[in-house]
Formats: sequence, C-alpha cells, structure tokens
Amino acid sequence: MSSRETARRVAIARGEAPADLVLRGGRALNVFTGELVEADVALCGEMIAGVGRYRGNEEIDLDDAIVLPGFIDGHIHIESTMLSPTRFAEAVSPHGTTTVIADPHEIANVSGLAGVRYMLADAAGGPVDIYLTAPSCVPATHLETSGAELGPAEVERMLAWPGVLGLAEMMNFPGVLLGVEEVMLKLAAAEGRPVDGHAPGLSGADLQAYATAGPRSEHEATTLEEAREKLAAGMWIMIREGSAARNLRELAPLLQGEGADRCLLVSDDRNTFDLLADGHLDNTLRQAVALGAPAHRAVRAVTLNAATRFGLNDRGAVAPGYRADLAVVSDLEDFEVQLVLKSGRRARELVRPPTKTPAALRVTCDVGDLTAASFAIPCDGTATVRVIEIVPGQVVTRHGQAALRSREGELHAQAADDLLKLTVIERHHGTGHVGLGFVRGLGLRRGAMASTVAHDSHNLVIAGASDQAMLRAAEAICSAGGGQAVATDDEVLALLPLPIGGLMSEAEVASVGEGVRALTRAARGLGCELADPMMTLSFLALPVIPELRLTDRGLVDVAAFEVVPLIIE
Amino acid sequence: MSSRETARRVAIARGEAPADLVLRGGRALNVFTGELVEADVALCGEMIAGVGRYRGNEEIDLDDAIVLPGFIDGHIHIESTMLSPTRFAEAVSPHGTTTVIADPHEIANVSGLAGVRYMLADAAGGPVDIYLTAPSCVPATHLETSGAELGPAEVERMLAWPGVLGLAEMMNFPGVLLGVEEVMLKLAAAEGRPVDGHAPGLSGADLQAYATAGPRSEHEATTLEEAREKLAAGMWIMIREGSAARNLRELAPLLQGEGADRCLLVSDDRNTFDLLADGHLDNTLRQAVALGAPAHRAVRAVTLNAATRFGLNDRGAVAPGYRADLAVVSDLEDFEVQLVLKSGRRARELVRPPTKTPAALRVTCDVGDLTAASFAIPCDGTATVRVIEIVPGQVVTRHGQAALRSREGELHAQAADDLLKLTVIERHHGTGHVGLGFVRGLGLRRGAMASTVAHDSHNLVIAGASDQAMLRAAEAICSAGGGQAVATDDEVLALLPLPIGGLMSEAEVASVGEGVRALTRAARGLGCELADPMMTLSFLALPVIPELRLTDRGLVDVAAFEVVPLIIE
Repeated sequence: MSSRETARRVAIARGEAPADLVLRGGRALNVFTGELVEADVALCGEMIAGVGRYRGNEEIDLDDAIVLPGFIDGHIHIESTMLSPTRFAEAVSPHGTTTVIADPHEIANVSGLAGVRYMLADAAGGPVDIYLTAPSCVPATHLETSGAELGPAEVERMLAWPGVLGLAEMMNFPGVLLGVEEVMLKLAAAEGRPVDGHAPGLSGADLQAYATAGPRSEHEATTLEEAREKLAAGMWIMIREGSAARNLRELAPLLQGEGADRCLLVSDDRNTFDLLADGHLDNTLRQAVALGAPAHRAVRAVTLNAATRFGLNDRGAVAPGYRADLAVVSDLEDFEVQLVLKSGRRARELVRPPTKTPAALRVTCDVGDLTAASFAIPCDGTATVRVIEIVPGQVVTRHGQAALRSREGELHAQAADDLLKLTVIERHHGTGHVGLGFVRGLGLRRGAMASTVAHDSHNLVIAGASDQAMLRAAEAICSAGGGQAVATDDEVLALLPLPIGGLMSEAEVASVGEGVRALTRAARGLGCELADPMMTLSFLALPVIPELRLTDRGLVDVAAFEVVPLIIE
Repeated sequence: MSSRETARRVAIARGEAPADLVLRGGRALNVFTGELVEADVALCGEMIAGVGRYRGNEEIDLDDAIVLPGFIDGHIHIESTMLSPTRFAEAVSPHGTTTVIADPHEIANVSGLAGVRYMLADAAGGPVDIYLTAPSCVPATHLETSGAELGPAEVERMLAWPGVLGLAEMMNFPGVLLGVEEVMLKLAAAEGRPVDGHAPGLSGADLQAYATAGPRSEHEATTLEEAREKLAAGMWIMIREGSAARNLRELAPLLQGEGADRCLLVSDDRNTFDLLADGHLDNTLRQAVALGAPAHRAVRAVTLNAATRFGLNDRGAVAPGYRADLAVVSDLEDFEVQLVLKSGRRARELVRPPTKTPAALRVTCDVGDLTAASFAIPCDGTATVRVIEIVPGQVVTRHGQAALRSREGELHAQAADDLLKLTVIERHHGTGHVGLGFVRGLGLRRGAMASTVAHDSHNLVIAGASDQAMLRAAEAICSAGGGQAVATDDEVLALLPLPIGGLMSEAEVASVGEGVRALTRAARGLGCELADPMMTLSFLALPVIPELRLTDRGLVDVAAFEVVPLIIE
C-alpha cells in the first residue's frame, strides 16, 4: 500500500473526499463486539476506509441487508470439489467466500511441487484469495506409489513461497508420536509458522505429545469432549462440516463458551453436489445458527478467527483499515448472500477463465498398454481370497473372505454374488504395478467403474463385473487424461474428464455437477445402490483407514499396516 | 528448535522419558478454556512438553499453587522506570513478567538509532524478553530540539531489526488525520506489522480515519464508551494501569464482555516507586480481580492476548509446545508470585549485571560552560510575563501571567510568591539554545531542581529560586553525565545520576528508588509539597499537553502550537 493511498483512505474516512464505493443503508456486523450496527461502509480501493455515514462516487443501497466480512475457509482440499482453483473460486465466491486456506494434498501426491505451484498460481487475482499450506504427508504411506515424494527439503522450499502460510495437516500422527526424524524435520522447518493438525481421537499424554511437536489446530475432533481437550491443549479448533465428515451438530456448543474465539468453521472437503445444492460457508453458518450458535460468534469463526489463526491480519472484519472483502447477506438466519466484494471490487467481475493447465499436470495416466489380460488373476482350482467389504455410508471397510473356483486358469468376478474384481494400476511413473483384489458391496450386476481420484496416491482404481468392461472404463479415462467413468463391456455410459492431474476439471461447477450426476445414474443403472458410488470407489485405495484396502502394491491390511496376499489358501 | 529437541519433547510428553523439570502438585490455569486444572507441568529445555501427570529429573513441589503463563506487558516505556533494560528485567522478573514490548521513545529522542539498539541488546538473554516497537514520533514536535530525528528511512531500518515487532504508538494523530506525508510513509513502512495507536479522545469519523491508516491498538482510552468505540473500530484495547495514568477502574468491565480476547492490560509507564511498592503486572492483575474482572480473563489479557496481538505465537499459555515462561502464584486474588521460569529456567538465575553502556549514550549533557548568567532574563523596568501554572495532581498546566519588576536589568524569581525561574537548555548538540520562563506551583522557597528527564526531547530542565542554585543543580547533573538533582545556593542536597542518555541508571532498582526518595525529601525540605516533584518538573517541557510549556526554543502555547514570547508587555 502506498503512502499516498493511505492518505486518500484517511481523507475518505474523515468525509473530506467521496469514497470509491459506499454500501449504504445496511447494517454491519461488528465481529469484535458482536453488535449489529446501522452504518454505511465506505471503501477506498482494496480497503475499508470507514464505517459510519458516508458518500461515495458509487453507492449501492443495501436496503437493510447485513454486511459481513468475507468468509474464510481455514481448511479445505480444493481437489475434493473436482474443480480447478479458478473454477472453485468461481463456484464459492457467490456464496460469500473471499479467502481459503487450502491443503493441496491430493495434487501434491500426483504432481509434487509442480502441482502445488499450479494451485497457487491458477486462481491468483481472482475473486477468492487462495492461500496454501505445504502438504506434510506426501506420500501418505509407504504402501502405495504416489506421483511424488515431498521430503523435508521440499517442505522447506514450499514454505518459502509467497502464499504458503504454514505446514498442512500432519496426518502422520503415529510418526509424530514415534519421533520419526523426517517428520520432526518437517515440523522444525515450519517452526514459527502455522502447523495444522490431524489427530483423530488422540487424547491424554499422546495428545500432549502431538501438540508439543507443533501442530496448533485440529479439524478431526468429533465429540465435544475431544474438542475441548484439544482446545485446552492450545489448538485452534476447526469445526468441520464437510461432505464426508460433519461435526457441526456435535461441536456447535463450542461457539457459546470460553475459547469460542479459538474456533473456526471449515469444510475440509466439499463435493460438487453439496456445493451446488447447499453452497459453502454460507450454508455452514445457516446450520450453525439453526443449531443454536450465536450468529456473531459463528460469523467470527469464518472471518476474524480464521484470519487471526493464519496471521492474515489485513482481513476478517468490517472495520477501518481492513481489507474490503465483504459478504452482504439477507439476515443472520438464512445468510442468503446478495453481494460479494473482494478487495473492494464486485467478486463476479473478478471471475476469469482458467489458466492453461501446465503440461506436467496433464500427463498423468501412464499405465502402459492395457488389455483385458492386465486384470487377470491366475489361479488353478479353488481358492479362498480376501475381500474388501464396503460398509454403506461409511469410509471404513471390513476384511472379508470368499471361496472362488477358477475358470480357464483365472479367478473372475461373480457379479451375481456382488463380488467384483478390483484393480489399482500405478499411473504416475509407468512402473506397471498392478494391485488386484475383490470387493463386495458396490452392487454392479454388470459393467465397471473407474477413477483416477483414488486417495491418497490417486492411482487408477477400477472395479468391475468383467475384465472387458474394466478395460473399457480404464481406456476411456486414459484417453481423457484422467477422470471417472462407468462402462459396460460394449460402451462407455458416462465419463467425467479430470485432465488436471486426473483430479480436477477445467469445466465450471455446473458442468462438473452434471458429469457427477451422469456417473451416478450410470452406476445405478448397472445395479449400484450406494449414495455416492464414485466416492466410495475412490476411497477403496486409501490404506490408512481400516480394515482392508487395495493399492498398486497389493492388498493392505490396515491394522497390520502391511501388504497381504490376495489368496489365503 | 532442532528436530532432535522436538523428538525429545515428544518423548517427554508421552511419559517415555523424564522431563528436565516438572512443576508438581499445582494447578494450571488454562487461558483457552478459563479452567483451573490440577496438573503437573513438564518442561523440556525452553518449552513446555506436556500438562498432565509427569516425572522429571528435577521436580518442584508447588503445594497447590497456581501455574500461570509468564506475564507480557504489551506496552511500556522502560525509561519511565529510570532503570536500564537489564535492571528493569531484574526488577520486574520477580513479579512474573517474562516478556515486554517496549517503546524506546525516550532514549530514541536522546540517542536515536544507537539508543534503540542499546535497548534491544542490553538485556538480551536475561530473565525478560524485551521486544521493541520502532519509535514513530522522534522528535515529538518541531517546537523543541531532540537528540535525534528518526524519519521514514530510519523507521524502515529499525523495523528490519530482529526483536522490533512493529511501529510504536503513532502519537502524531493530527499528522495522521491531515495525511502528512512523512507520517504516511512511516505507516506504510510498517504495513503488515503491528502498529500501535495513541489517539486520546478520538471518535467518530476521525477515529475511523486514524484506524484506517494502520494503528491497531489503543492505550489512551479513558472511558468505557471510548474504549468500546475503539474496540469496534478493530483496535486492540490496551487497558492502561500505569503510574501517571490509571484506567483500569473505568475499563475493567471490558474483560467481561464480547471482545475481551482483544484486550490487554499494560503499564505504559511505571515509576520506580510504584515498581518497588506494588510490583508490575501482578499488581495490575490483583487490582483487576478486585474490580470484578474474571481472573482467567485478566490473566489472559497479560498473556495469550498480548502474545496474539504481537504475533508471539510461541508463548502466552500453559500448554504443550508453548514456551516455558511461567509464573507460579499463590492464588487468583493476591497473585503473590512465588516462582518465575523463563524459557524453562529459574528467572533469578538469568539475572546478570548490565552490559557496558555504549559511549554514544553517555555523552549527553552538551550544554557548554554554564554560569549563573546563563539563566539571566534581561529586562528594564516592569514587565508582564507568561507563567506556567502547575495544577497539582495533573499533567496539564495553566497559562498564567505575572507582573514583575526588574532588578539590575534582569527579571528574577520571586520565591516568596511561589514564582520560580524555569530554564530548558538544549543538551544534545551544543546549540546553546536556552528557553527561559517562570513557573508557579512548585513551591520551592529556596534552591533549585534540575533534570535531564524532560519529556519528550529530554533537554536539561531547571527550576529554581535563584540562578546560583540552578547553576549548582545543573552542574551536578552534568558532572554525573545526566540525572536529577536538588540543590541550594551552597550545596547539592540530592543527586540521582542517570548516565544512560540522561534517562536511565545502571544501578539496581532499590538504589534508584533510594535516589528518588532522596530527591523528593530534598525538594520537600525546600518547600515543594507536590506528590512527585521531579516528575512534575520533567513534564514542564512537554509541548503536546496544554496549556503552556517551556522547551529549548522558548515558551510554547500548546493550543496555538507555537512558540510565544515570555514578556507580553
């Protein structure tokens, strides 16, 4: 900010010069005092000049609407929306979001530093400031092949980039508790910067140990007792209300008590469907207030508190000298967003087309020449195999078994028994690694589903009733440079291209939403009755959640944290 | 912090290794939840490993005493204690203080950047972390001659020094409101860093204008209404309880309401007498609780809130991973401090002798050869002169008059009418500037008082019943390299040497306290009945507080903000 601009802002605040823009006739929520004040808000360039009675070169009549600080999502994985940063900004901005702190964990697993740089650059100057935290756990485990490995040196590099605020959620809490050197080095690199935590269920001495290592926030608390213990341990509590995990109902009482100023409301993940149907933090505010949270405390949790936690001291309040990031809402119940300003400009005017996706992020389906034989499981006679059993509505799986009889020297899917073949093919380095297994609970009577979104290494995961359909779905995805598909033996029923790292689309949210719906419809048509078939598929490769998973290295027994053979006997 | 130290801390927190030191059998105040918890506090090196049940290589039994975070004074001028930083740390540390954010405004006015560097360096590694803010208003006005001028370039230099956290109180609020370029440049230099405010009584559009320029704190609010308006304007409220100004009684209710987390308790100034008699922030806590403030909120105001305001995120709580700055107190009423730890070590073990004062700070009494004639006010016949009239118990003065008859071609003091001669002699550059005037209200029947503490430029101020006594007092001070003295025509009755810039002593607090008492006794013996004669004298040169003052440039009519002649007619 130039000294001349400061002088201009002072003159506007004193009423000696007209403001660039005045929001007139509304009420402003003061997050410091909790009061709703009848006042105009005068802007000067990117900043708020004053709150009071003002005239401007341009004026917008608010007709008693309420001016809030623009919303800040303190923890989100943008990749969960399957939108590019630019498209994400375009989608959430109308919902009042003006800043997010994103952990680009997914794209980092696929494309490493190039992916993180892309997330920083793509949406720069748009309607939402996208800050990042440096992914701390890439790869997530040694039981899978990720596209990149980010060690302490890479973490240090990322931390030096403008726009990277700190270290992203330290998911490797066992590594923290064991004092693993690489983990300690990453934490040391981030000293003095925000370090986000991820320590579900940790308590007592282990929680003290985790917190003493550096993490100062937690978004995994699911009970009030857990959250309060973590608050007391000096951690900022990020009350999560995402698409997969929803903790607001349980944790909303935190906003009533001592320490409410240390609480944030965050998304963690938000799928396209929820984004389109419900919105973003506006919806979280709506729910928080419906659950009895004082409105001003809920608003503060998505504004000032988030800004304070991340040292973004230029924003988070409707007050003089703060950034003119503003969300005008109908009231403090419905939070219907009527107008959004980003750095003093109408957010919608800042929406722009995506930047060109770097080539490095587009070549991410290196699986060699697939044939139906790629999915073959050689076996003679009968065999007892391990089976991943889906638990509807949950991310955990069960470790089941099935007795199978081979046909023509191979084991096959038995769709009639809801036993599908499951394959994870390494797609980042062309290693040819293929993990093979069986899954029960998807319900496909025929055909196949495939996805390059496959947590956390995002290899190509395919489940199907026949090798032919699996091949077809996989080929469709690879031709599209990554994505999700549903196919039969003969045709591709639905395809959502995700050419950015195989994780994100360049299309706008409505189009991606339509793509997701088409996939769901196609999977349903083949017999799958799960709420979100593709999401369930994408989690079958995640080797950190019990009990049995499949990676490109093979079946993983999560409790033992090791690869186990498919065939037991 | 090394990664190895982090691993060691983790192991201690888990109970796998004994702590370096454990505070056992006490209660810890949790500033996040407001709860008092029975728990041991385990230390690892400089940091807290965990709060719970621990064993250590060394253990201290607290016998139910209460562990608080070490106290942080968010705004103090160390020079007000007349102690060097080292001696200040030695004096306040036993009262629980472990960190201060000091504005070295006084020494900066005398010695410029060298003075500021000295304040940073002198007490480094001692029992109190002394952080600074860069003085923003040196000189304070153009109506006096200071020892240094710190413009925007110097401010920028200071802001780059480790340990300088932001810009010190922007006292030139008229300059801010007028958009004066130099002021705007200083504010711009500090953008993104904490900028402290100073805007007594400012309200409405002017307050909006002041806040929009950058200042984000205020310690000058004296009424609840004023403080609330400033809180609402996005400013941290520093509730001041100093020696000269005491606002706690009025502002304590802030600690009960919304926004209490944006309040600090600070000293601003603290004289030697109060320091010895009452202590430091321990006394402020005592008073706050007596005034009805919730104890945990009051404690938070001198710990976590202060740390958050200044981005000192390593401290301010008794929690894992926070710095082991701790104050053990008897209870939450008397706050009797029993033990203080600084970065894990007993604070008293960290006390050390002062560093050698740099030569640049010692040669600060450059007044040339004084004689009794230096104080002569030539005049023939009678004259009506302006008189500075002291208002007992207040810093403001009245603009009075007196009719005088000359003797031997000069105007003289008339002690019988309580009309003393007052002189301010420029002492920094040997300019020979001498301001001459008269003062009523000091009450000396004979003799003189002199001081090199003379706000804000700290020239040599002398008041006396005779030129001879004035000369004697001045000479005594100059021989001592600065200080305060009381003398008669024949002898020096009391002398407190302040050889560090003429502002601070190298002696310990008890010795300085004795010196102050001796000065007061001597002044009383000569007829002065004021509560603090030397303090009153030191404020007679301050040209920013109404109504009439004397600087080395002459008499200043504060309302007109200009130099006016002594003789009216």
